[in-house]
Amino acid sequence: MDFEDVEIGERADIGTHAFTRDEIIAFARRWDPQPFHLDDEAAEASQFGALCASGWHTACTWMRLNVEDGARRIGEAVAAGRPVPRIGPSPGLFDLKWLRPVYVGDTIAYSWTVTDKRASKSRPDWGLITYHAEGVNQDGVTVISFNGRFFLGRREAG
Amino acid sequence: MDFEDVEIGERADIGTHAFTRDEIIAFARRWDPQPFHLDDEAAEASQFGALCASGWHTACTWMRLNVEDGARRIGEAVAAGRPVPRIGPSPGLFDLKWLRPVYVGDTIAYSWTVTDKRASKSRPDWGLITYHAEGVNQDGVTVISFNGRFFLGRREAG
Repeated sequence: MDFEDVEIGERADIGTHAFTRDEIIAFARRWDPQPFHLDDEAAEASQFGALCASGWHTACTWMRLNVEDGARRIGEAVAAGRPVPRIGPSPGLFDLKWLRPVYVGDTIAYSWTVTDKRASKSRPDWGLITYHAEGVNQDGVTVISFNGRFFLGRREAG
Repeated sequence: MDFEDVEIGERADIGTHAFTRDEIIAFARRWDPQPFHLDDEAAEASQFGALCASGWHTACTWMRLNVEDGARRIGEAVAAGRPVPRIGPSPGLFDLKWLRPVYVGDTIAYSWTVTDKRASKSRPDWGLITYHAEGVNQDGVTVISFNGRFFLGRREAG
């Protein structure tokens, strides 16, 4: 999938992840050791009411599934004899919202939807894709959303 | 430090972190397994030119140092017999920018600066702090920046 093939509105469901107590605590110990991500009692006394995942954990899980989905697409391109897409760096994100807590046992379904595409002015052989990312729990409630951008190679320089 | 004590413009230097090859690869394997975060040769052939850290890694390291800094402040409050600040959830981030790659051996100095404070309309015993976060490398170049918000307890409900 080169820049030319991407369509605005295109959506990818990149996978689901079930958040276990052990993984929530292990992530928090390493990256976000706040009591309500580490300890049941402290979490019950907090605004969250129960042990819940670090927001960085729910975000990094989107990234993990996104990279795996990208690897699948690259594998399919190779298998079909199509050119391998050139996936470039991401300049960043905007409007990252942690809308609801992710509790032990929640299963989050992650996706991205293309919201914009434009040629890069400074790099004629690259385009810039803008997407909306979401994670939705088993009750249909969106727990995380953000918008991001990444560079994708063009077949023909603009 | 309650909401009332926070001053706009106040800055905290929350610590530095040296990014090693092993840590860059370990983080990428778990959360962002793209070739330029995992393998020297692939990274040399990429836009980055050398092995570099996942942007999520540089962001999570800010969070880790931020939580440690907060824990120090809480410890100081307890030791001085002052009330323990109530640190609440974060509704999210905006304008997260990965400005430059973080390469093996880079040391990043992280900080936050308060840019706004306002009473919460929906939660009268809480205020909302807005901050600008940065990571700057050993050459004085900003590699990551974002703006974020978190709730902080008020001594007196508005």
